[in-house]
Amino acid sequence: MERKHLVKRYEAELQEIRILLLEMGGKVEVMISNAIQALVNRDSSLADRTILSDHEINRLEVLIDEKCLEVLARRQPAASDLRFLTLALKIVTDLERIGDQCASTANRAKELNEEPPLKPYIDLPYLAESARIMLQESLDAFVRGDAELALQVCENDKSVDDLNIQLQRELLTYMMEDPTTINRALKLIYISKYLERIADHATNIAEMVIFMVKGQDIRHGSLP
Amino acid sequence: MERKHLVKRYEAELQEIRILLLEMGGKVEVMISNAIQALVNRDSSLADRTILSDHEINRLEVLIDEKCLEVLARRQPAASDLRFLTLALKIVTDLERIGDQCASTANRAKELNEEPPLKPYIDLPYLAESARIMLQESLDAFVRGDAELALQVCENDKSVDDLNIQLQRELLTYMMEDPTTINRALKLIYISKYLERIADHATNIAEMVIFMVKGQDIRHGSLP
Repeated sequence: MERKHLVKRYEAELQEIRILLLEMGGKVEVMISNAIQALVNRDSSLADRTILSDHEINRLEVLIDEKCLEVLARRQPAASDLRFLTLALKIVTDLERIGDQCASTANRAKELNEEPPLKPYIDLPYLAESARIMLQESLDAFVRGDAELALQVCENDKSVDDLNIQLQRELLTYMMEDPTTINRALKLIYISKYLERIADHATNIAEMVIFMVKGQDIRHGSLP
Repeated sequence: MERKHLVKRYEAELQEIRILLLEMGGKVEVMISNAIQALVNRDSSLADRTILSDHEINRLEVLIDEKCLEVLARRQPAASDLRFLTLALKIVTDLERIGDQCASTANRAKELNEEPPLKPYIDLPYLAESARIMLQESLDAFVRGDAELALQVCENDKSVDDLNIQLQRELLTYMMEDPTTINRALKLIYISKYLERIADHATNIAEMVIFMVKGQDIRHGSLP
């Protein structure tokens, strides 16, 4: 009976970490959406709230790290739980850095909101939404242990990269044709880079999920 | 006797991970130096070699991850070893991403080497060297468990950030005064960003070292 009780508590601890990670992921997803909305709707107060919410992400990072260390220290996790816990430790780092990219995006949005818009923002919201979906799917793949879905995330990264390159080229043309746009175009280039980096973090998570599920490392260019 | 033998083997395994991490760190440091030398000396063949050496970094990341997981699975590490191992898992991720930044720098250097130089590169090598030293010191702090040194790395990050901002402003002025420089200036802005990001990774490592040594989390803005 006692052993059964212990096993139950152990499972509850793993489940708590899973839920905290999803909570953190959900908050980061909202940050992505809000950061780009702050730009599109010229809403600097939303940008401020986005920047502030980064503290909550940082708090969750520290909390989840501690929970993982506690379980690693007190239990002797079996191979699959061990991979889950070490992966959780790595995923929180990616999530925290996505939070940083969102705060940077919100900061650039605030600056851009002070000036007339350079052009209607169509591609950037699309890029942001693609990155957000990649993050959502990589975390879904993590909790469900779904290597197929994770693989799909890795494959989507290419189209985000392409869109980023296309956007950079377009903004470069603006700058060259009209130097008064340089300052604003540069900030938009930064935002495009931040969003592409968010997609990279989601891809990192997805690659690690495949490693967790298949015990096989596809991180460095050996996609099947 | 047998127990003593086991303890010795366990220590040897931890030591092996420590040495592999330092080897990886050393290779990444060389990549930083080579990437910026490829730009300053207009040496595109050095840039190519830098890009190629990223494979070795990726291989080391996978190897160290595996070693850490093995030790975590087979032994029951005590609290301090556990912190060392989970920190090693996080540090390899930072090192691998620094490798990526170096490869990106080398790629931009190759592109810039095709065109006449925009200006003598003085600040960028200084920025690169500062970032390299921060990385070296953060890894020294890790293997020696030296929280003082780690704290110093965190404090140095501010001056790298400032230099990056100053460089960006200067390059923006170039672009505005002479639009034919836009393409090159933008690439230099990217390189400055890559280097600043390398310093950020070193700072992340240093913050985690302080956490390891003091069991206290200073990661989010609570420097003593």
